[in-house]
Amino acid sequence: MGISIVFGGASYEHEISIVSTIALKKTFGTYIKHYIFLDGDHRFWLIPHEYMKSSFFAQGLYKTKAKELFLGNGGFYYPQGLFNKPKILKIAVLYSLIHGADGEDGTLSAICEFFAIPYIAPRVQACVLSFDKSLTKLFAAQRGVLTLESQILTQQDTPPLTIPYPVIIKPARLGSSIGVSVVTQESQLRYGLDSAFEYDTRVLVEPFIENVKEYNLAGCKIGEEWVFSIVEEPSKKQFLNFEDKYLDFSRTQQVLRADISPTLEQELQENFKKIYTDAFEGALIRCDFFVIQDRVYLNEINPIPGSGAHYLFADFLGTLQALSANLPHSKRIKPSYKYIEQIQRAKGK
Amino acid sequence: MGISIVFGGASYEHEISIVSTIALKKTFGTYIKHYIFLDGDHRFWLIPHEYMKSSFFAQGLYKTKAKELFLGNGGFYYPQGLFNKPKILKIAVLYSLIHGADGEDGTLSAICEFFAIPYIAPRVQACVLSFDKSLTKLFAAQRGVLTLESQILTQQDTPPLTIPYPVIIKPARLGSSIGVSVVTQESQLRYGLDSAFEYDTRVLVEPFIENVKEYNLAGCKIGEEWVFSIVEEPSKKQFLNFEDKYLDFSRTQQVLRADISPTLEQELQENFKKIYTDAFEGALIRCDFFVIQDRVYLNEINPIPGSGAHYLFADFLGTLQALSANLPHSKRIKPSYKYIEQIQRAKGK
Repeated sequence: MGISIVFGGASYEHEISIVSTIALKKTFGTYIKHYIFLDGDHRFWLIPHEYMKSSFFAQGLYKTKAKELFLGNGGFYYPQGLFNKPKILKIAVLYSLIHGADGEDGTLSAICEFFAIPYIAPRVQACVLSFDKSLTKLFAAQRGVLTLESQILTQQDTPPLTIPYPVIIKPARLGSSIGVSVVTQESQLRYGLDSAFEYDTRVLVEPFIENVKEYNLAGCKIGEEWVFSIVEEPSKKQFLNFEDKYLDFSRTQQVLRADISPTLEQELQENFKKIYTDAFEGALIRCDFFVIQDRVYLNEINPIPGSGAHYLFADFLGTLQALSANLPHSKRIKPSYKYIEQIQRAKGK
Repeated sequence: MGISIVFGGASYEHEISIVSTIALKKTFGTYIKHYIFLDGDHRFWLIPHEYMKSSFFAQGLYKTKAKELFLGNGGFYYPQGLFNKPKILKIAVLYSLIHGADGEDGTLSAICEFFAIPYIAPRVQACVLSFDKSLTKLFAAQRGVLTLESQILTQQDTPPLTIPYPVIIKPARLGSSIGVSVVTQESQLRYGLDSAFEYDTRVLVEPFIENVKEYNLAGCKIGEEWVFSIVEEPSKKQFLNFEDKYLDFSRTQQVLRADISPTLEQELQENFKKIYTDAFEGALIRCDFFVIQDRVYLNEINPIPGSGAHYLFADFLGTLQALSANLPHSKRIKPSYKYIEQIQRAKGK
């Protein structure tokens, strides 16, 4: 049936989304039906397959060589000249690779819900809970999943740190390591905070644990069945910066499976289930965990991981297709006029 | 400049939204520029002022007598016949009175953000946090605001209650007392749960405290200034059911100020500020509090209160207009192509 990818977005992760989509095209190109690009002005474009190269976007060529699409009930429409009605673009399912704002913040999910477009991405509530790292911690606690202690600072209110150095400073609502820094002593603090406040009004401070064991696990629930990726142990650099992640997102080969016990693998899966259940249905997400003294901590939820984390799956495309056939039923409530009619009748008496 | 109201929505509170808007028209009719109706099929209609009567909607007359509007960049558009481009409807600010789904769940806010329509309503994140009563509790705790203890039940997982009877049972994501019941003994529990599960997959159980002191406070922040309503002590029935609330929403006269000490009033305002700050900017909300043994507890946040809670304000219209002029600046991030260009240059070497 084919999958239509939407990517781009007015966000700091716009480029990552493009690279992420091109990486997916390299692996699954013939199975992808449409590439729908969202530009920085919130205009959608249908990109011909042969133009799916990063320069096409960087140089703005899509504005002359691609067809613009318009949102309407049921999906995307394209004009057919003066005397014909706009035609609908037939989409089986829209798979979102919009990282950052417009995608992970819930905007596109709300739009898909509103216009009744079937889509693979977390629903609005799940986006909001995973997009803001301070809310992720509350949400994890509610579900009995551990996270590291943290302190939230705002531009108006930056009290002394309660967490001993070294600390890691992150904008509350941003991915891909943008604005993140590790601060080992007080003299660096101001600079670290300024870098983070450039991207958000709320900033999260957490302990930075050198050589912490990190494990990434992606997956989704299809009907009553769980599909999990292999567990990956990400690269052992101090932490991935934007450029590293950028390259990371463009990799296409199967990475190596982490060398962990079946017990730990199961524990990671159990924590994943607690996060996912009754919140992330309809999405394929990646949860990044720490293991400290044999205890599993959630580091963060990647609601729309780079390249879909396809390199972690044995059968990524099959998983996406099964997920497409098992999307949450979003019921549109039919308005009732019961009380208004009662009042009308009472008036008529 | 005039305010344009959007109302309706595909929700259980569709009728309440209509009644809410008609009540506002009765009081401020001449200052309201447009009435934009969202029907159950997610189609928008521009309703002529003279048709703003509940029967017009109940009988579906809007489909023949009103102009359909279409969303596009910058706002709503209406067709101008075959040979002319659709015209934009000039809106200074869109004031949302969509209670329940489509409004309070964040959908309309996401749409306004996406299409760059200035609007009065909580932003998407604030909607999600106030729409789901279980998240409201987490959010309140993060900000040092007390709430009653609670237990969350799902259809899959209904363990024995940990809260002694009497309890109040509420669907997690619904307002206007729909699906809410007070259960005084175990024999009534199943029925109470079934009533709530009819509307949501997650249900909240809280202690029901007879004759608890209840106080409602509405307000907003305009620039650096707080505007608060009078504090209202709502009617002393056991609790308002849907029909009571329905009638309640349609009232138009100034209600009586609660007889409370200035200290308590200030305490309510301080709690309101903790909830609102850095979350609800751009909205006029109502917080409903309990006072138990001299301590203030948040009961719930009404992100889009019935009739805007206008009857609690000395100068409701002035407040809305000042708020319109001080909406949060939602910056649309301009995509950069820095890394892609670096890679292109490297390739060119």
